[in-house]
Amino acid sequence: MWVWDRAPPVFLSAFNSGLLIETEGPPAGGFLHGDTLLTTAHIFDQAVALQQQSDGTFNGHTSAAYANMVGPFGGISAAQLLNAVLLHPQRLGEPVSVTINFAAALADGPFVIDAHPARTNRSTQHWVIDVQQNGEIVLTGTAFTAIRRETWSVDEDAMPPCPPPDQVALPPGQAPMEWVKQYEMRPIVGGMPQVWDGSGDGSLTQLWVRDQPPRPLDFASLAALSDVFFPRLFVRRATSVPVGTVSMTVYFHADAAQLQATGTGYLLAQARAQAFRNGYFDHTAQLWNEAGVLLATTHQLVYFKN
Amino acid sequence: MWVWDRAPPVFLSAFNSGLLIETEGPPAGGFLHGDTLLTTAHIFDQAVALQQQSDGTFNGHTSAAYANMVGPFGGISAAQLLNAVLLHPQRLGEPVSVTINFAAALADGPFVIDAHPARTNRSTQHWVIDVQQNGEIVLTGTAFTAIRRETWSVDEDAMPPCPPPDQVALPPGQAPMEWVKQYEMRPIVGGMPQVWDGSGDGSLTQLWVRDQPPRPLDFASLAALSDVFFPRLFVRRATSVPVGTVSMTVYFHADAAQLQATGTGYLLAQARAQAFRNGYFDHTAQLWNEAGVLLATTHQLVYFKN
Repeated sequence: MWVWDRAPPVFLSAFNSGLLIETEGPPAGGFLHGDTLLTTAHIFDQAVALQQQSDGTFNGHTSAAYANMVGPFGGISAAQLLNAVLLHPQRLGEPVSVTINFAAALADGPFVIDAHPARTNRSTQHWVIDVQQNGEIVLTGTAFTAIRRETWSVDEDAMPPCPPPDQVALPPGQAPMEWVKQYEMRPIVGGMPQVWDGSGDGSLTQLWVRDQPPRPLDFASLAALSDVFFPRLFVRRATSVPVGTVSMTVYFHADAAQLQATGTGYLLAQARAQAFRNGYFDHTAQLWNEAGVLLATTHQLVYFKN
Repeated sequence: MWVWDRAPPVFLSAFNSGLLIETEGPPAGGFLHGDTLLTTAHIFDQAVALQQQSDGTFNGHTSAAYANMVGPFGGISAAQLLNAVLLHPQRLGEPVSVTINFAAALADGPFVIDAHPARTNRSTQHWVIDVQQNGEIVLTGTAFTAIRRETWSVDEDAMPPCPPPDQVALPPGQAPMEWVKQYEMRPIVGGMPQVWDGSGDGSLTQLWVRDQPPRPLDFASLAALSDVFFPRLFVRRATSVPVGTVSMTVYFHADAAQLQATGTGYLLAQARAQAFRNGYFDHTAQLWNEAGVLLATTHQLVYFKN
C-alpha cells in the first residue's frame, strides 16, 4: 500500500523535483546468502513479530524500518495480518488466498489483530481478520488456508523474457521512504519516472526484487513483496498525485516447499493497471522466482486524488 | 462460483459425454428493452431480494432459477451479499470493490446476511459481511463503497477486437444447470469444450453476455455477471474434474451512471487463468460494455480436485 494523501511536503517535493535520494547498493562484500543468514535477526522478522494474548488476539507494533510516507508500507501490514493466521494455533494448512482492506492509515505504535477461523472444513479453512488501533478498525481482511495435494499443474502465465538480475542495474535514485531501503529493486521496465512531465503512455513495470539483506522467502514476506509496486498512476501519467491502496488480494500458487526452494533468490515482479477511473485504479500483478515458477498473482484497487 | 464437488451424476455424465442440453434462444418476438422492461418482475430481482430485520441483518432465500450443480450459482450469492450493502441504510457511496469467499455450499433455503460498516471515513466506507445458514457461516466478504468524483481517467485494457453480438451465434448446446438459462451467452473463443479429450492448450474465453431476459445493468447484476465464466480448467484441459470457487473479487470501475448508460446491452466478458497448481487455479477477467468501457475487472481462486 502506498498512502500519499497528507504526505509530508518533503516527499512530495522530492518527487515533483525529481530529487530522489541516492540508491544504497549492496555492501561491498555482498549480502549473506542461504544458510549463513540469521533469519531470526532479520528486520522483516522483527517487523512482523506478534504476541498472542490470552483472549486469542495478537499484539503487534508498526515498524519504523517499513515506514511509508503516511503510516506503514502496506506490504508490511499485509504480512503482519497474514502472520496472525500463520501463528494461530487453530490454523489448518497453508495460505492460498488473502485479501486485505486498508480502512485507515495506521498510526505509528501498537495495534491488535483479531484473526479467527469463520469456517473450518475437512482440509480448508476460511479466516476473518481485523486490525484495530485505539478501538477503531484500521484494516479488515479475509484469508483462506488449505492442505494442498499434488495435482496436475501448469503455469499459463510464463515468466516474460527478461535479462537476469545481475545484468539489471540498481536505479540511480530511489524514493525517500524507509521501507524502500528494505528491498533490493532492479527495475527492468517501467521504473519510477525520473521526470514528472505527464509523458507516460503505459503502466507496465517489471523488476527484480528481494529483501535487503536477502532473507529466505516465506508466505509473510511474499505477501509483503506483493505490494512492492509503486503506484501504476505514476508510470502511466508521469505525474504524482496523492494515492493510497484500498484493497489488495494475493493468491499464493506456491506452497511452502516452492517458497523454500526459492530461498533468497530474486523474484521477477510485474504489474500493470487495467483501468483508471474517477478516483480509483486497479492493478494486476505476478511474481515469479528465478526458475520461472509463478509464485503468486495479486491485485489491487488504489485511490487517487485527481 | 461453480461448485462441482458432489455434483449429481446427471451433470457429470452430461459433461463427460458431451450431451449438453439444447440452447434456448431468445423468444421469436425478441426481448423487451430499456424502459419497457418491468425490472421489478425480473427473476434476478426476485432472487436478490432481501428483507432487513429489526437487528439490522437481512433475510434472503436461495433461488431455484439460479441453482448450480451443487448449491446456488456463486454469482447470485455475490449479488445477494452485495445487495445487503446496497440496501443498508448506513451505506455511503457506491460499490468500488467487493470480495466474497465461498466457505461452504449453501443449502437450498433461507439465509441471513450480516453486513455492517467496519469503518466510515469522510467519503469512503469499509464493510464486513457474512452469510449464515443454521448458525454456520457459509460466505464471508468485505466491500468498499465510496462517493466518486470525476478525475483524469483512462482504460489501459482496451476491449479486444471481437465481432459484434449479433454476429456471434448462440452455442449449439449449454450446460444443464438452471442458472445458465438466466443468461444469454454468445461465446466467441474458448467456449465450453464439446469434446472432453484433454486437448486444451489455453484458457482464454471471450463471450458476449447479458441477463436473459435483458435487464438494465446495476451493481448487483454486474457482480453476478462477473462470475459467469465456467471453470478455466475445463478450457485449458478439455477435462472435467470437480471444481468450486473459493474466493472472488470484483473491482467496479463503472459508477451508477455508466451502468445506466450500458442499459440492457451486452457485455464482452473475458477470462484467463494464470496458474493451475496443486488443487487451485486462479483467473483474471474483464467486462466491457458494447461501447468499449471497462466496467469491471475481477479475479477468482478456484479449487480443483485433480
